[in-house]
Amino acid sequence: MDPIKAMSLLNRACPYLARTGMTALQGLADAGLSGGGMRSLSTSAVEQARCGVCPGHTGQSALLAKASECPVVGPSIRANDAAAAAKAAKATQQAPVTACPYAKCIDPADADGKVNVNASRPSKAVVGAGADAAPVSHDSQEGAFDYDGLYQARLAKKHGDKSYRYFNNINRLAGRFPQAHTANAANLVTVWCSNDYLGQSKNPVVVDAMKDALDMYGAGAGGTRNIAGNSALHLRLEAELAALHRMEAALVFSSCFVANDATISTLCSALPDCVIFSDKMNHASMILGIRHSGARKHVFNHNDLAHLEELLAQYPRSTPKLIAFESVYSMSGTVGRIPEICALAKKYGAITYLDEVHAVGMYGPHGAGVAEHYDYEASLSAPVGQRIPGSLMEQVDIVTGTLGKAFGIVGGYIAASSSLVDMIRSYAPGFIFTTSLPPPINAGAVASIQYLSGSQRERFLQQTHVRQLKSDLALAGIPVVPNPSHIVPVLVGDAERAKMASDMLLTEHNIYVQSINYPTVPVGEERLRITPSPGHSADMRSRLVGALDSVWNRLGLRRTADWEREGGRCGVGESRVNSEEHVGWKRGVEYMWEDHQLKQARDYEMARKGAVPITPAIPETVQQVISATMV
Amino acid sequence: MDPIKAMSLLNRACPYLARTGMTALQGLADAGLSGGGMRSLSTSAVEQARCGVCPGHTGQSALLAKASECPVVGPSIRANDAAAAAKAAKATQQAPVTACPYAKCIDPADADGKVNVNASRPSKAVVGAGADAAPVSHDSQEGAFDYDGLYQARLAKKHGDKSYRYFNNINRLAGRFPQAHTANAANLVTVWCSNDYLGQSKNPVVVDAMKDALDMYGAGAGGTRNIAGNSALHLRLEAELAALHRMEAALVFSSCFVANDATISTLCSALPDCVIFSDKMNHASMILGIRHSGARKHVFNHNDLAHLEELLAQYPRSTPKLIAFESVYSMSGTVGRIPEICALAKKYGAITYLDEVHAVGMYGPHGAGVAEHYDYEASLSAPVGQRIPGSLMEQVDIVTGTLGKAFGIVGGYIAASSSLVDMIRSYAPGFIFTTSLPPPINAGAVASIQYLSGSQRERFLQQTHVRQLKSDLALAGIPVVPNPSHIVPVLVGDAERAKMASDMLLTEHNIYVQSINYPTVPVGEERLRITPSPGHSADMRSRLVGALDSVWNRLGLRRTADWEREGGRCGVGESRVNSEEHVGWKRGVEYMWEDHQLKQARDYEMARKGAVPITPAIPETVQQVISATMV
Repeated sequence: MDPIKAMSLLNRACPYLARTGMTALQGLADAGLSGGGMRSLSTSAVEQARCGVCPGHTGQSALLAKASECPVVGPSIRANDAAAAAKAAKATQQAPVTACPYAKCIDPADADGKVNVNASRPSKAVVGAGADAAPVSHDSQEGAFDYDGLYQARLAKKHGDKSYRYFNNINRLAGRFPQAHTANAANLVTVWCSNDYLGQSKNPVVVDAMKDALDMYGAGAGGTRNIAGNSALHLRLEAELAALHRMEAALVFSSCFVANDATISTLCSALPDCVIFSDKMNHASMILGIRHSGARKHVFNHNDLAHLEELLAQYPRSTPKLIAFESVYSMSGTVGRIPEICALAKKYGAITYLDEVHAVGMYGPHGAGVAEHYDYEASLSAPVGQRIPGSLMEQVDIVTGTLGKAFGIVGGYIAASSSLVDMIRSYAPGFIFTTSLPPPINAGAVASIQYLSGSQRERFLQQTHVRQLKSDLALAGIPVVPNPSHIVPVLVGDAERAKMASDMLLTEHNIYVQSINYPTVPVGEERLRITPSPGHSADMRSRLVGALDSVWNRLGLRRTADWEREGGRCGVGESRVNSEEHVGWKRGVEYMWEDHQLKQARDYEMARKGAVPITPAIPETVQQVISATMV
Repeated sequence: MDPIKAMSLLNRACPYLARTGMTALQGLADAGLSGGGMRSLSTSAVEQARCGVCPGHTGQSALLAKASECPVVGPSIRANDAAAAAKAAKATQQAPVTACPYAKCIDPADADGKVNVNASRPSKAVVGAGADAAPVSHDSQEGAFDYDGLYQARLAKKHGDKSYRYFNNINRLAGRFPQAHTANAANLVTVWCSNDYLGQSKNPVVVDAMKDALDMYGAGAGGTRNIAGNSALHLRLEAELAALHRMEAALVFSSCFVANDATISTLCSALPDCVIFSDKMNHASMILGIRHSGARKHVFNHNDLAHLEELLAQYPRSTPKLIAFESVYSMSGTVGRIPEICALAKKYGAITYLDEVHAVGMYGPHGAGVAEHYDYEASLSAPVGQRIPGSLMEQVDIVTGTLGKAFGIVGGYIAASSSLVDMIRSYAPGFIFTTSLPPPINAGAVASIQYLSGSQRERFLQQTHVRQLKSDLALAGIPVVPNPSHIVPVLVGDAERAKMASDMLLTEHNIYVQSINYPTVPVGEERLRITPSPGHSADMRSRLVGALDSVWNRLGLRRTADWEREGGRCGVGESRVNSEEHVGWKRGVEYMWEDHQLKQARDYEMARKGAVPITPAIPETVQQVISATMV
């Protein structure tokens, strides 16, 4: 049997096998296990085996017992059981209150083991309650709508078009960044696709600030911003963000998804007869905000200024208009044409809404994003918070960003004029009627922003690693979607094979790169999205390139030359007349971080006194990297 | 001049005076300060005084210098400066990286002082950048829409109808729960309006779990659930939640605002020709989800079963229908009629969507909410995760809850059947395209849920304090909106006076109770919303009642007898024929937590071994409260 076909079939049939390498296929067949068999076992056996007396705890299920015999997952399960038992024992010792208050308990190791085992399955199957807790079925209600039938049909559709998502169980380890353990705590993998771009989530400066805030102010805000949930830390965070973007004010939300949805919908429903112009590759949160505003919308082709202008020119100058776009587009790594779009906005009386989610922390000498990076020299000598007359940052009306990617935590924000921010603060339900961010999140975010506005080390390391990886992949003929940013999208062009490539990297090479399929990218443009960080070493990089080369061979995936022969796709193997338009950056300049900027960053870091290493576990020190990778 | 009128005028004019007591008015007049004068000072002087060389740092502004002379806020500012200087010095020592990398810095004490001073002002004025960082004005763009004019007009509307919100600066102290400091760290107030209902945000079990997770897995998830942001902790949290609600599955979101919006909009746009029936008092997040679904909607009067049935009966049984309601309504404390609504759903072929945000952790013997509380005895003997045939929990199709109120942290969730949860997981943009919850949040939430499912202590203390406070307020004639829950809404009935009462409590009595005005409650039903917790002592309670009595006298607010003479409002001074319908609970039973249930909880806690005190700072031990307050 064709190994690709066999693996694909098994992936669909068995939740335990979705991440299994092909080397194990023969052993599996010998063991006589089939996916369907395991599923039915899962349904019936959990019920029989579960503990009937203790809240939240189940016994070891028959499925688990059977699975531990499996040649593929068995060793992991057995290793995991030992680790889980140790952990559960420790947890019980630390917190006796978690023991069952109402009845005698089974061995807590089993309870813990349950969750760890289930953890490798999609969330629908996670719950220990099993068939025991089935909700009232409406099927028995004669004549009523078949709700469950509809849910099942919608799921079948996802399975059918291969867009059903199986979540990998990835536990990123602060002490071993960028490594993580899988459902099996003993199984370490190197994470190459996290949006913790700079490793700030394990920066001791951030972690310690969060612990201090936990001790001082506790775990949660305890209310909305208006009712008991507004603290000096919230105001401090917003002041830091406003200063970073050299704006009058900033406002923090639960996430940048919420920030985009709430701000665009509130703003554009308030502006009378507002028309929105939206880049075709804009993020889902902006698309949703636009839809929720009820305003008229035009979508312009990605980075296509002529198309945008044609659309703008249809309306009188007096019509309120908003142009919504991004600085770094997450899935392609291309860059929004900020100066040209701001100029068009001025010409046609529009305001600009720039999402810098995948840029803040990483571009500009203080990490304020691509708008700051455009005026690198001027920004370098102007302190954060100070106006730079004539700069690009001044021409953007509303900038949005996240605290959850390069800043390493969670949460989102907007920065703009005082009056706009106050208007959103006063009218947006998504801001008003929700619990505000917890004290440790605020404190950690302030520490992270301050740290990155004062350190060039992480940006320098990230960019040098990105250059090196792109160069290595080019040599190996692995097709990378061209762009001037830190994102390395490797084109596969097929949903099933992209998932298989990701699975093979994980199970056979201990490398985690998530496959990106429709609807996140168009059908035919499926990819592996790689994000080098300051923590990835030269050794990790060469292993990654080797593993990709091997997977490309085994799955027969197209290389750059193959794409070229076929006419190319999303910039791979294409010789576009106007590549500037495609990648959004200056013609003839390959990277946003130019050589002289990297040199400045290096010199600054080498001269800086009291530079704090972000973790002792980082495999390459600043100076090693500097001497090894700088041209 | 009428002191009420004077204070009202000053509140509008000066950001520093919005929280100022009337005793200071004369001194203020003597100082010759007017609001307008201070505002203009703010605009011009910050620019002159800010540091031109250092990122993020400003000098002490002229406004600050002037304000420190003010008889009202001066002492606080001066005390704050000293504290800020000490703190900044410490911070600089700990984290040298926050110092300015590019130029010589001014004294960091000033930089810190800036933020602390601004912290007492609304966020629009927070930013140190001041006039220096004004964005490009579109006023100069001839013929373009006047965007800023619109923002200003919208804000003027808020000021005009008194719905403009000034956020109080409240820093809840973990070590002194339920106390907080204001913008001045030396100024302690007792918080009586937090939704950290049970003090879990400072429970060492929660805080320690968060610290452990920070050390092990870092500050942030680093991705969406599909890309590097799905961990064993996420799955564990969802398994705990599903078990708590005895459902097949659960799904975690950034907040319950997002959970409600995303779930209702995704579900009801997927159900063909779905009709939604929504309680009139439903939360903004559900209202938004309903709007975003595009489905047909009917609003039924609060808890009005006849009205609901009349609306349901218009549609064929085969039409998909969703009934959306809450268990505890936040602003009134009334309770949704869950059994009756579930029965109507069954009769008319609808599914039920129950928001238990203000109930989870606090009702039911395991803290699963009001649905569990209905079957108190049966739930008591059935472990979490086990089906209870015929129980009310079984009749609810979708339950939603928060991790940010009684559980003390942040985040929201749904629990339902596997297929429904998997459908939402697979289709809801608000779930899919956002960074997942950080490791410390997941770990803290698991610890908090487990703790509260095994401890009756906090529920017992909260409920006994609630009973005592309602009884004390009744004796004093302070009007409380009647309800069977833990929420104590004190009716004022006027927006301006409600804010004044809140300000007087804060500045003269060191008691923080936020006033709740339109649009959160209807005009004429403005209130102070009080939420007693396990940490409030008898002494705090008597001070609160005394302070309310004094404020009621000074502002001439209506007492219960006054409302009665006027025919009553929202249950105060009204003798409703069907009070059961109004408050939503069993006829003739005053509190959801009945006497015999409180007795069971007390006996259980007294017998339990190894009970962990939630903090040494709690002013009353379990046994003291038991002997002092139990009847």
